[in-house]
Amino acid sequence: MTFELDAHIAVRSQGDGRYAADLDPGWVVGGGVNGGYLLALMGNALRASFPAKPDPLAVSAYYLSAASPGPATVAVDVRREGGSVGTASAELRQGDGADEQVRIAALATYGDLDRLGDDVGTTAEEPHLPPPDECVANTFAPREILELAPMMARFDMRFHPEHVGWAVGQPSGRGEIAAWFRLVDGREPDPVSLLMVVDALPPVTFDLGLMGWAPTLELTAHVRARPAPGWLKVRHATRNLAGGMFEEDCEVWDSAGRLVAQSRQLARQPRPHR
Amino acid sequence: MTFELDAHIAVRSQGDGRYAADLDPGWVVGGGVNGGYLLALMGNALRASFPAKPDPLAVSAYYLSAASPGPATVAVDVRREGGSVGTASAELRQGDGADEQVRIAALATYGDLDRLGDDVGTTAEEPHLPPPDECVANTFAPREILELAPMMARFDMRFHPEHVGWAVGQPSGRGEIAAWFRLVDGREPDPVSLLMVVDALPPVTFDLGLMGWAPTLELTAHVRARPAPGWLKVRHATRNLAGGMFEEDCEVWDSAGRLVAQSRQLARQPRPHR
Repeated sequence: MTFELDAHIAVRSQGDGRYAADLDPGWVVGGGVNGGYLLALMGNALRASFPAKPDPLAVSAYYLSAASPGPATVAVDVRREGGSVGTASAELRQGDGADEQVRIAALATYGDLDRLGDDVGTTAEEPHLPPPDECVANTFAPREILELAPMMARFDMRFHPEHVGWAVGQPSGRGEIAAWFRLVDGREPDPVSLLMVVDALPPVTFDLGLMGWAPTLELTAHVRARPAPGWLKVRHATRNLAGGMFEEDCEVWDSAGRLVAQSRQLARQPRPHR
Repeated sequence: MTFELDAHIAVRSQGDGRYAADLDPGWVVGGGVNGGYLLALMGNALRASFPAKPDPLAVSAYYLSAASPGPATVAVDVRREGGSVGTASAELRQGDGADEQVRIAALATYGDLDRLGDDVGTTAEEPHLPPPDECVANTFAPREILELAPMMARFDMRFHPEHVGWAVGQPSGRGEIAAWFRLVDGREPDPVSLLMVVDALPPVTFDLGLMGWAPTLELTAHVRARPAPGWLKVRHATRNLAGGMFEEDCEVWDSAGRLVAQSRQLARQPRPHR
């Protein structure tokens, strides 16, 4: 069986570092296609470019224009290969010839997480979440959220009950949203899927009462370990809104209690939702 | 008068997005040239490429090989211009012809911080530091540190007394180093110089007892406001060492108490210092 995500991020090599892809309409959110999904798709093309280095260690994406469902190309240019890591630039493009537009420009360093050693020293604390059954499922999201974000149908998310006040007009004001996360068809997490997971929750600005989607300018993700199967815990937080922008920090923890991915994005504050 | 930093990050346009530069030996650290200095130099070339967008908002740098003092080229390729922000790729290269090596591959989004509005909503807390005169000056650094890092002579740094135990073999183990920071010749901070400041302190792993320089794989900086003149407060912290790597988060606060820059880098843990 092919899981939905794998079908949606599939790429076909066309030689010379170019990969053809189809952006699936199931990942529409706000006025475009979800940035995390696009990053996982680019991550898949990058993985194909580094046969002996299957895992994204660091990926930085600059979002230049909103993507639409349909055909797209990922152009990968390996900038350094050899040793234990390799680095490439990648662009996601849509349109033909003179009308071709860059949607995302990215840089990435790939390696093999299994060969990095298993030393861990951490002071990071796993987010506290009640058991999934005591959390609020995304299927209870307000209709306007589900209409804005068809991609929510791909996810089984269970939100911390204290982090969903925004859904009933009572945001906490703390700037924090944490949830259990898994894909509805049982597809287990892997390093490439984590690139999607770090941008899957609603914008953390919902918890500040700023409803509406928040366009990402830049997102960098670090994958720190291969995730164990099962539920992930995902936590978004922001500490600083200034100049019409905010940073959104994301942590992803696996079922074994390891911090498997960290990301930070710089996004524009949403305009008030009408 | 030309301040030292401005002379050291000067670039000469050679047309077609290429800029010539000289990497100054005053920024040597460990086995290479300081990554923050190189980022500010690239930031200067990028600024020249965006005449109406003088300020770096987000810059991501992937460090591919160690640079040496001497001639270098910055190649800038504007990927999107127009609207309030512009995005470009940039590479720092050394060597000629077939021997040319990429030192750093970067992506950056530029804009005008003065046109972003002055709304601020923050829960971030300014680092607590005793007054500069009650802190430990970098001129007291152990000789081996000063020899490893000639760039320290560019800085007036005053370390929190509780964050310099590593200098006398007693690291705190917390993974935190905070200091006052300014340039010795009085050059005031600006958005481009902040790209240097985020990588100027010793690696935060010193505070974990891991002495030795820590090679950066990736560093992303966000400049969130134009800094006021005067002392900066710089704080480095890490929470997660795993697989031979750690993340180093940096915050820079200006004399007006604003969080003016944030960065995160993924670096390799230093090998034991012999």
